[in-house]
Amino acid sequence: MMSKARLEAFSDGVIAIAITLLVLNISVPSPAARGTLAHKLAHEWPSYVSYATSFLTIGIIWINHHAMLLRLRAVDHAVLFLNLLLLLFIGVLPWSTALMAEYLRESSGQNLAAAVYAGSFLAMSLSFFAIQRHTLLTKTHLLHEHVDAAQREAIYRRNRVGLIPYLVATIAAVVSPYLTLAICAALAAYYALPTGAASASPAS
Amino acid sequence: MMSKARLEAFSDGVIAIAITLLVLNISVPSPAARGTLAHKLAHEWPSYVSYATSFLTIGIIWINHHAMLLRLRAVDHAVLFLNLLLLLFIGVLPWSTALMAEYLRESSGQNLAAAVYAGSFLAMSLSFFAIQRHTLLTKTHLLHEHVDAAQREAIYRRNRVGLIPYLVATIAAVVSPYLTLAICAALAAYYALPTGAASASPAS
Amino acid sequence: MMSKARLEAFSDGVIAIAITLLVLNISVPSPAARGTLAHKLAHEWPSYVSYATSFLTIGIIWINHHAMLLRLRAVDHAVLFLNLLLLLFIGVLPWSTALMAEYLRESSGQNLAAAVYAGSFLAMSLSFFAIQRHTLLTKTHLLHEHVDAAQREAIYRRNRVGLIPYLVATIAAVVSPYLTLAICAALAAYYALPTGAASASPAS
Amino acid sequence: MMSKARLEAFSDGVIAIAITLLVLNISVPSPAARGTLAHKLAHEWPSYVSYATSFLTIGIIWINHHAMLLRLRAVDHAVLFLNLLLLLFIGVLPWSTALMAEYLRESSGQNLAAAVYAGSFLAMSLSFFAIQRHTLLTKTHLLHEHVDAAQREAIYRRNRVGLIPYLVATIAAVVSPYLTLAICAALAAYYALPTGAASASPAS
Repeated sequence: MMSKARLEAFSDGVIAIAITLLVLNISVPSPAARGTLAHKLAHEWPSYVSYATSFLTIGIIWINHHAMLLRLRAVDHAVLFLNLLLLLFIGVLPWSTALMAEYLRESSGQNLAAAVYAGSFLAMSLSFFAIQRHTLLTKTHLLHEHVDAAQREAIYRRNRVGLIPYLVATIAAVVSPYLTLAICAALAAYYALPTGAASASPAS
Repeated sequence: MMSKARLEAFSDGVIAIAITLLVLNISVPSPAARGTLAHKLAHEWPSYVSYATSFLTIGIIWINHHAMLLRLRAVDHAVLFLNLLLLLFIGVLPWSTALMAEYLRESSGQNLAAAVYAGSFLAMSLSFFAIQRHTLLTKTHLLHEHVDAAQREAIYRRNRVGLIPYLVATIAAVVSPYLTLAICAALAAYYALPTGAASASPAS
Repeated sequence: MMSKARLEAFSDGVIAIAITLLVLNISVPSPAARGTLAHKLAHEWPSYVSYATSFLTIGIIWINHHAMLLRLRAVDHAVLFLNLLLLLFIGVLPWSTALMAEYLRESSGQNLAAAVYAGSFLAMSLSFFAIQRHTLLTKTHLLHEHVDAAQREAIYRRNRVGLIPYLVATIAAVVSPYLTLAICAALAAYYALPTGAASASPAS
Repeated sequence: MMSKARLEAFSDGVIAIAITLLVLNISVPSPAARGTLAHKLAHEWPSYVSYATSFLTIGIIWINHHAMLLRLRAVDHAVLFLNLLLLLFIGVLPWSTALMAEYLRESSGQNLAAAVYAGSFLAMSLSFFAIQRHTLLTKTHLLHEHVDAAQREAIYRRNRVGLIPYLVATIAAVVSPYLTLAICAALAAYYALPTGAASASPAS
């Protein structure tokens, strides 16, 4: 069976690559285009905000992924498959981040783009939640012995609750893409800062 | 000689990068293009299906690659070279996946594109099979002692049989590119799901 | 909590990817464009200089990052967050490097582009300094015992002084983008060469 | 000081990324362009040949890099710097490979493109040779004790001789870019195959 160490190394690799590919979506303005560079760079602010938001969010899922693996003493095939699904959705983020930045200020398609953006975070969180659910509820023998029933229950609940903000951000896209981006950015900042980490994080 | 650990770390790196580069082939529709974003995104479905198919297929070859290395206690130069060939074909997949997605609905070139797509999976599987053949039949001293003759025989046969589906998918491109994509997607789903893993996988 | 080893492996991954993505900004001149290839390649010299400068600078920060982690025996949440911020700014460098190369010889925007270029190095150095400050001044229990007060003081001062050259390079953009690039290139060469390493480096 | 393990891990990362980025230079022909897909794919053969050549060449330098590090028991600052230079030239290969493929059949610039292509391999080999020279001749205390004077001499000579083919390939660009590509491809095949590995390799 797959060793935990190699699962972790491979996941780290995919996460590190996805997080670094985000930069490819920030374009260099053409010198030939009209206006000053200051104006052209300022105009690209959705790229910067969505870059920082996605970067921090992927960084947080990486931290949580590590915490999850620390609790496990072995992985089964379901963990392998669900982890692959998680990586598949993390791998999609450079694209959904670019979509968000491209459509934020458009007068058509902006709501759908925002829904896809927050929805890709939701899909990522759901895959992560599925791994947690599998190991915390169904296959508890995969956990280290020191993780007792009360802890399992607490982690499971915290993860389930942690899905709500991304669901809200996805639904908020109906109202405004700015609202969705603001919720996602606020979540990233909240979980990244020490206060957020101490309390419930989407997938710790 | 090359240590098994570094061969594994390097292979994991290349596989993780190739799997993450797949996303670069999903394009962000231009806001200036005609039609709603929903329509434009829906129109890109071949990109999503081929992304998911290639992602899972690469994920499965990664799992199988790990299982193979677990059986080895040392690697020789032939393993090194064949592994490099395997990585070369895995490295090609972001391109062949983009080719498949681009031509699926075209009225010209669609069959060849599908043949190239399934053919790149076949080339990858053949390289993997060559490593297996080398260690299971020719250089059995590279294997751990606990892998006995019966096991070697079983793994070898399973791998040989596992080449057939990709051969079939490649030939099916003559009939229809949709058929090829459907076979490849079905194989990815089958091997990724627990049932598939328990039975013969293309290269376990 | 996050283990130092995984923090290091992940950081190494992001740094290695960012350093390798720099090459995507060196374009292949179109055969259809006017002039000889020699002329067209020579015309792209800002790409080469900024590639080499950014490559060496990222290489130096990687070396310094390793030296910093060697001093730590544990990481807390603040280190995790500040490290993520450091990676976020390293991740931006392929973009700011491309911006510098694109605008160096323009008659408009060239100063701002240079300021952004040196400014991204400054932001990277500031994030690194923040980690140093946190562990050297505030949370000294995160350090190995053999790092005594005199050493902490020396490293801290050296790091603070090391911020100045990038601040100067950023301000120098007001005068000329060539000056900024020259300072950044000189710094990269100075720190990369043995002499520079023996003396104060921006973040050792 | 930098540990050998982290130097190796970081180098492996950069090498794995550079080798995988090569695929970005193989383009997907536009369905809108004239001609059948078969014709368009066949027309791209320089991309395939240069992809395979560069892939194998990078794979070989990775194997040789590993063999070199196995001989070392420690690294000094010069090794760190020369290794960074080696990675800088490996990082350039996706660009020089694209340049070679783009200009091979042009009637202008083809010789220079080929010289740059082989020249980038030469620069890579020279950086590698510089590390070897430094540890085999100057700083022999960096080597493991079992590497005696006769071995050091033999490895050093083999490496020096190994520079010649890439020098020849670079000069051959004056005659024909096809000749340069053929030499580089032949070298990659020769060193990758068991026979080549047993005899002198450019940088073992």
